[in-house]
Amino acid sequence: MDEGPIASRPLVRHRAGAAEAGDDRVAVEAPLEMRIDGRALAVTLRTPGHDRELAVGFLGGEGLIASIDDVAAVDLHAAGCADEPDLADVRLAPGVRIDWTLIERHFAATSACGLCGRAHLDSLRRGLAPMRHGGPFAAHALMRLPERMRTHQAAFAATGGIHAAAYLDETLEPLALFEDVGRHNAVDKVNGRLLAERRWPARGGLLWISGRAGAEIVLKAARASIPALAAVGAPTTLAISLAEAAGMTLVGFLQSERMNVYAGAERVRAG
Amino acid sequence: MDEGPIASRPLVRHRAGAAEAGDDRVAVEAPLEMRIDGRALAVTLRTPGHDRELAVGFLGGEGLIASIDDVAAVDLHAAGCADEPDLADVRLAPGVRIDWTLIERHFAATSACGLCGRAHLDSLRRGLAPMRHGGPFAAHALMRLPERMRTHQAAFAATGGIHAAAYLDETLEPLALFEDVGRHNAVDKVNGRLLAERRWPARGGLLWISGRAGAEIVLKAARASIPALAAVGAPTTLAISLAEAAGMTLVGFLQSERMNVYAGAERVRAG
Repeated sequence: MDEGPIASRPLVRHRAGAAEAGDDRVAVEAPLEMRIDGRALAVTLRTPGHDRELAVGFLGGEGLIASIDDVAAVDLHAAGCADEPDLADVRLAPGVRIDWTLIERHFAATSACGLCGRAHLDSLRRGLAPMRHGGPFAAHALMRLPERMRTHQAAFAATGGIHAAAYLDETLEPLALFEDVGRHNAVDKVNGRLLAERRWPARGGLLWISGRAGAEIVLKAARASIPALAAVGAPTTLAISLAEAAGMTLVGFLQSERMNVYAGAERVRAG
Repeated sequence: MDEGPIASRPLVRHRAGAAEAGDDRVAVEAPLEMRIDGRALAVTLRTPGHDRELAVGFLGGEGLIASIDDVAAVDLHAAGCADEPDLADVRLAPGVRIDWTLIERHFAATSACGLCGRAHLDSLRRGLAPMRHGGPFAAHALMRLPERMRTHQAAFAATGGIHAAAYLDETLEPLALFEDVGRHNAVDKVNGRLLAERRWPARGGLLWISGRAGAEIVLKAARASIPALAAVGAPTTLAISLAEAAGMTLVGFLQSERMNVYAGAERVRAG
């Protein structure tokens, strides 16, 4: 299973009436089981690579750890066969406890992604203290982001089908960019890097994503105390209302000549 | 919370140096808790509408029911406040039993989407009997699908940010098309319609999706016995290998002048 983020696959290309066999580069998707001290926490379909960041960032984004000091080590085990998931076992530091009943409320019976369970949504919105830090960002600088980030999206350039997420500091310098077939995973990897570099909580900067802005992406940014989210794609209603509750700036449809600000417009300077 | 699939939200539009306040139409995302006979099964963030199809199709796509005869009724309850999920309670027909230990293996601790858990992936690939039915489809007819489907994508036309999935019969006539902020939900709604119309298992036809083809989309199509999946976006490696195991045709990067066939090329006629 250890193919890295991109693999070659045979295909037949159809173009204007003709068909031709060839090869294509395809984004790798493979299961990773995340554990805490040996106990199964979650299985995610992710693009292999940076599994430590993924596991740690997942815990941070769900509010289960507050700092990298809560983690003693992350043990990675590659799967023995193609149908087994790889493993990332997060070993907690001595004295650190996780409330498993909370986890079960969060994750048990979740079919969609990232969050869910009634308790989770409830408590999340209530727990979102409005952020006042960060920004402002110049509109023209934000609109340059998709073009600037593209130079870092190696797997997208190869495959045409993989998401990216990046954290940029207050001057909009990128500090971390990760690509993954799962949008949430890409954001988790960014959060994991912030945790590892002790930039957690971030208390500034911006999360850029190559796709759409759904509720769970806003929540992961809010957990990291990142006050702004800029998405190339569309937002949802729940993403907007959660961003408002968190005092976050939410930009959607970010392009080189235009963008829409759906929340926290005070952090965006025109021009 | 009952806004329908599209809602109006205020925003600030930035265009070439100027900023202007206005309103935008945004895809609604709201939680739905699915239950079986009152017992919580899953919570998904979905676009409201066709919740019956979503709940029933979710069960079918996960192999938990074999026919609409397994379902006595689906009770829908709108949430009392914004932070609560809406409810869809599937009441099973007398004598129908669901194996909850199987469900817990499938869904407990799933963070990504649709499938997962080691047991699930294992058993799925093993359980996929290669399909031999369906097709062939003419390449030129497939390449017309994105344009043909666009006329049915009302919410996408309004919001620019919502997925769609459609089931088309062997003559590529669309029998069902649903839009949802979650790709899996859109496919679940299609499957729910197939179940309700007693076209389950489908044993023919094609599933078209507006986005990327990940593993879980292939699995949902395979459970419905739909032998072909055509995606506007990219496939993943796991989607390709699962399509091969299921004997499915997998088309990616479907456009008006070109497309790529990653599996089951025998069902696609050139020209």
